[in-house]
Amino acid sequence: MASDSGSLAVEVIALRGDEGSARPDSVVVEEPLEIRLDGAPIAVTMRTPGHDLELAAGFLVTEGIARDFGALASIAHCNAERNTIDARSEPGATGIVRPEPRAFVASSACGLCGKATLESLRTFAPALHADVTRVEARVLYALPERLRAAQPLFRATGALHAAGLFSADGELLCAREDVGRHNAVDKVVGWAALDGRLPLAGTVLLASGRIGFEIAQKALVAGIPVVAAISGPSSLAVELARENGMGLAAFLRGESLTVYAGAERIKFR
Amino acid sequence: MASDSGSLAVEVIALRGDEGSARPDSVVVEEPLEIRLDGAPIAVTMRTPGHDLELAAGFLVTEGIARDFGALASIAHCNAERNTIDARSEPGATGIVRPEPRAFVASSACGLCGKATLESLRTFAPALHADVTRVEARVLYALPERLRAAQPLFRATGALHAAGLFSADGELLCAREDVGRHNAVDKVVGWAALDGRLPLAGTVLLASGRIGFEIAQKALVAGIPVVAAISGPSSLAVELARENGMGLAAFLRGESLTVYAGAERIKFR
Repeated sequence: MASDSGSLAVEVIALRGDEGSARPDSVVVEEPLEIRLDGAPIAVTMRTPGHDLELAAGFLVTEGIARDFGALASIAHCNAERNTIDARSEPGATGIVRPEPRAFVASSACGLCGKATLESLRTFAPALHADVTRVEARVLYALPERLRAAQPLFRATGALHAAGLFSADGELLCAREDVGRHNAVDKVVGWAALDGRLPLAGTVLLASGRIGFEIAQKALVAGIPVVAAISGPSSLAVELARENGMGLAAFLRGESLTVYAGAERIKFR
Repeated sequence: MASDSGSLAVEVIALRGDEGSARPDSVVVEEPLEIRLDGAPIAVTMRTPGHDLELAAGFLVTEGIARDFGALASIAHCNAERNTIDARSEPGATGIVRPEPRAFVASSACGLCGKATLESLRTFAPALHADVTRVEARVLYALPERLRAAQPLFRATGALHAAGLFSADGELLCAREDVGRHNAVDKVVGWAALDGRLPLAGTVLLASGRIGFEIAQKALVAGIPVVAAISGPSSLAVELARENGMGLAAFLRGESLTVYAGAERIKFR
């Protein structure tokens, strides 16, 4: 099964009560993407195909590998293989921190895999405190509808995460969808990296799901000063946001939200 | 910030329109758990504390490491550290497949991290075809409410995944909550492993979120013949279920659902 559109037609049986009927349906495409650095595999992520170069670029940034994005000379598919991308560093460049070999397996939905000790969780990140971005609460209230309007795949498949990057006055800069919440964020950050926009001062990230440590960390590493979410945050996301002066607004529903960190970044009466 | 209850009290500002008011709130606790095998770290996962031995046991099973669960002699916290667990294998035991050292970083929400090639995605799993479990559609319709009733943390924090294991006639066997969807499944499988119930013939797994490849794979490795979900499946989850004869019912809402694979496992008119 493969598709270039991000969704795939499948035959299903729709049940209502005891009545079943066969009908065509769409499911979101999920395929593994192998990311390599100078030819060496460093990660496999299950993602929705599309914007793969952005995903690889964003992953290298938010995982603290490409600490200077300019140290990368190229990011391209390997020999036209759709599911393998190789990033090449500039000869002699500094600003690239390669992962060390470890006997690690999976780290479900954590992004911390490969870091063998609990002490090494926090990766390199710019200081957010110097960014004085403030966002009106009424601007935040408008974001979920703007992100939904930019989610064609969700409408087709009903099973997808999204991330949207907005200016502080609510203009949509970039929206990306993916089966993986973290991939959607990486695609947005990768878009910005490839466009020379890092660090992302003066922006707001809206995530469709809940905010765990990893999403907060990825936003922090990208220099995003305000993170908003439809769902709720975890304890560690709140702690990370408070320690770093990041605004964190969750449960964005209609004309209400809850501020968990950085209330000075959100304007209200 | 730490808590033994799975939720943590935090002060927040609740906004409605332009009006903000400080109030106490609860967030779900997220902390890293390091899982070791015979003293060597093999994974760090961000999880909600509680049922940690089950989480480690389930992780070792569903990632294809403890292919014979009886080959493990013990699973225990290291020196009373709450965030580190060590599993010890029986001397000379076979049935343990140790991960190989690799220079891998994160693999967001994928569970395939550490497997360096796209060819090695599918881990060891029992054959489901020999299990003739069939489940009434009306039994499936009743499961979401039964799982919600067993989710105290979700009610407190609004930001949590859950997995429930049921008998084929809808009796709840085990329900677990976690910030990570995959951890909730691992906790349920680990509960079964520690109780000597593997493989999980004749059962149904209900997951609170969407069904990606990893959740389907974890269920398959545990021998669960029917997987149900509130949200939708990905293309790779559908493919895995179809190839292995697993029943896959999604969008479980009220008295309706959609069957994506293994319709012969679901009874309706």
